[in-house]
Amino acid sequence: MKDMVKTQTLKGFRDFLPAEARKRQYVISTLKSVFESYGFEPLETPVLEYEEVLMGKYGDEGDQLMYRFEDNGKRRVAMRYDQTVPTARVVAQYANVLPLPFKRYQIQPVWRAENTQKGRYREFVQCDIDTVGTDSPLADAEIVTCAVAFYKALGIKNFKVLINDRKVFEKISLQAVIVIDKLKKIGEDGVTRELVEKKLAGDLTEANSLLQELLNTKPTERLNEIIAVLEELGVDKNFIEFSPTLARGLNYYTGMIFEIETPDYPVGSICSGGRYDELIGMFADRQIPAVGLAVGFDRTIEAMDALNLFPADLANSSTQVLVTVFSENLKGKSLELTKELRENNINAEVYLGEIKEKNPLEKQLKYADAKKISYALILGPNEIEKNIFTLRNMQTRDQQEGSLEEILKTLAK
Amino acid sequence: MKDMVKTQTLKGFRDFLPAEARKRQYVISTLKSVFESYGFEPLETPVLEYEEVLMGKYGDEGDQLMYRFEDNGKRRVAMRYDQTVPTARVVAQYANVLPLPFKRYQIQPVWRAENTQKGRYREFVQCDIDTVGTDSPLADAEIVTCAVAFYKALGIKNFKVLINDRKVFEKISLQAVIVIDKLKKIGEDGVTRELVEKKLAGDLTEANSLLQELLNTKPTERLNEIIAVLEELGVDKNFIEFSPTLARGLNYYTGMIFEIETPDYPVGSICSGGRYDELIGMFADRQIPAVGLAVGFDRTIEAMDALNLFPADLANSSTQVLVTVFSENLKGKSLELTKELRENNINAEVYLGEIKEKNPLEKQLKYADAKKISYALILGPNEIEKNIFTLRNMQTRDQQEGSLEEILKTLAK
Repeated sequence: MKDMVKTQTLKGFRDFLPAEARKRQYVISTLKSVFESYGFEPLETPVLEYEEVLMGKYGDEGDQLMYRFEDNGKRRVAMRYDQTVPTARVVAQYANVLPLPFKRYQIQPVWRAENTQKGRYREFVQCDIDTVGTDSPLADAEIVTCAVAFYKALGIKNFKVLINDRKVFEKISLQAVIVIDKLKKIGEDGVTRELVEKKLAGDLTEANSLLQELLNTKPTERLNEIIAVLEELGVDKNFIEFSPTLARGLNYYTGMIFEIETPDYPVGSICSGGRYDELIGMFADRQIPAVGLAVGFDRTIEAMDALNLFPADLANSSTQVLVTVFSENLKGKSLELTKELRENNINAEVYLGEIKEKNPLEKQLKYADAKKISYALILGPNEIEKNIFTLRNMQTRDQQEGSLEEILKTLAK
Repeated sequence: MKDMVKTQTLKGFRDFLPAEARKRQYVISTLKSVFESYGFEPLETPVLEYEEVLMGKYGDEGDQLMYRFEDNGKRRVAMRYDQTVPTARVVAQYANVLPLPFKRYQIQPVWRAENTQKGRYREFVQCDIDTVGTDSPLADAEIVTCAVAFYKALGIKNFKVLINDRKVFEKISLQAVIVIDKLKKIGEDGVTRELVEKKLAGDLTEANSLLQELLNTKPTERLNEIIAVLEELGVDKNFIEFSPTLARGLNYYTGMIFEIETPDYPVGSICSGGRYDELIGMFADRQIPAVGLAVGFDRTIEAMDALNLFPADLANSSTQVLVTVFSENLKGKSLELTKELRENNINAEVYLGEIKEKNPLEKQLKYADAKKISYALILGPNEIEKNIFTLRNMQTRDQQEGSLEEILKTLAK
């Protein structure tokens, strides 16, 4: 035990201690429950895939950032880089048992050897829903409706769904749209100058007319149809904003694209998605239309933290009561009490550390404080003589004496 | 899209399609809820660690079976092999913020390049609870009590906790105990012969007296104390069986060890654990006592499958109602109905596939069948004329006509 090694995580990798882990679980279980209420079903795929399944699917950058290696059996393998390509493999591999449209959700970590910077990690959880096997505008609208529903469920009520159609870019190049999308950041002058610099326009006049043309673009017929369906599905108009400059970097989108932003936490989109009809069929040798979204899991948690949206009790231990142990002699009484609390569906733990002879409760109450346990139950010689218990509220420091029945009543509140 | 690649998973790796994934989630959420009611708190650690954190911690076999490689930054890294060593790192790294005793649970996949065989995988989920930082027999007993509680919660009611104390082996070597532990499989003759073959006894007479000595071993004082605490915590005596031949292969146990078996699914232990006081301190340069268990996640699921313990509705879609679409013209009505069902907390989806002009419902009902959706709601021209809906029970094929209010009443049941 003398060889000391690094007790640290790799750059871009994180431990989640209980308070953080509870927040993540809360978001995941809220998302799951909304996903399932819309008929999306869980799918899990392995962390490792044959390298050839993933290689070349995410452009040169993807091949570079992917964690790839040779396993003990000399197979080239790669770690999950997103959840869409594995889903494409699943759709091809289990074609005979998966009814289409296939609506699935997937919540698993992925790995990318990115340059680390604030809010960018090498291991991070992706939460995706996708509807595979239909090009109906209803499917597009349902994805957006589900997003509106889960953000409401998470308590984020002030947000905008910026929506556009990639078909818009048949007239104006994607490169030009990406520059024009910086409008809010760099202004009209900045945009027109960059268009000329990048040779996307001959001169400033041409750049300006390109900009005006895009700004004046009307939604496509298909997008209007999707927006109409959104209303029929009960989505408030105010959430939806047509944004002809919205580009979405990824090449694979073929139709509707959208991003969700909240002005209350203005750090870019907290969720994004769109239609991609030419990707899922890659392993099936035919086109399989699809539409979906990815929740920005870390950003959503940051936003909820900033807006104070996590239930207060997530900060506390799941243990409601610490049963203290006064002495070795009285240990049996404490164990019996713990048993009875549990039988009454009270989350209880008995103090497991060393029992000091002098001031036995001091360390135990400190433990309850540090672990943020709501109550401590005390039964020392006084209590046992009077056949009562003392319940201490760890936050207010109020103490209440009473019978087990009375204590249970307080705890049930 | 012409380059066809393998659409298959690596040997020992598995996809989980919705019905299987739902079972896994059910077990995980049941376990979590029991773990939390005992005050165990969630911990998450990264999949990748510095290789030196994991190397040498699992013996030569571990180093061989570990997935290890060089990352893009020329760092030697390794994939999680178990959850105990990462927890040891966490305990050292966050010593100042983690109150001891630290009671944590961890439910994450691990990777081992084992020879694959029935029921053994290269990627599998581990579910652990551990209490770190106390050598109290209460902690040992609480781990076992929690195991009894979660198996009851999962519906496995007929099981035995075989329990022993590693201290027993101070007189008889671990190697000999491992041989004697095969008693049920290979009989007394088999055991004595193997003891001689492996030079653990000089001859059959000596082997036999070794065997008898072990079989007649009494529980240690400590183990008796733990068993007494188990009773005080309400564990039925019948669940607990002292087994002096129980060995547990792993070298790191130092005190109580146990395994849980169910005669209803006799394939070995479905859960195991024990006290290991010399492991967790490895990164902290001091001894930190600990006790814990690992649920045999795959075996527990197999046992529950064999015993038919999964709730029947896990086999069904989470969607309760498929709202069918009769025609392009009536689509709006179906969308509105979907919205109203959702507003009434009914999990509903609207059919997203193509609407055939001839026999529009046939394919939609097939979809509901394939996805195991409980009900289909039909609104065609007849229904709209009469201002009613038709609710079809997909299992019984019964159809009920009624107003939305009446339909909602049926669905609420």
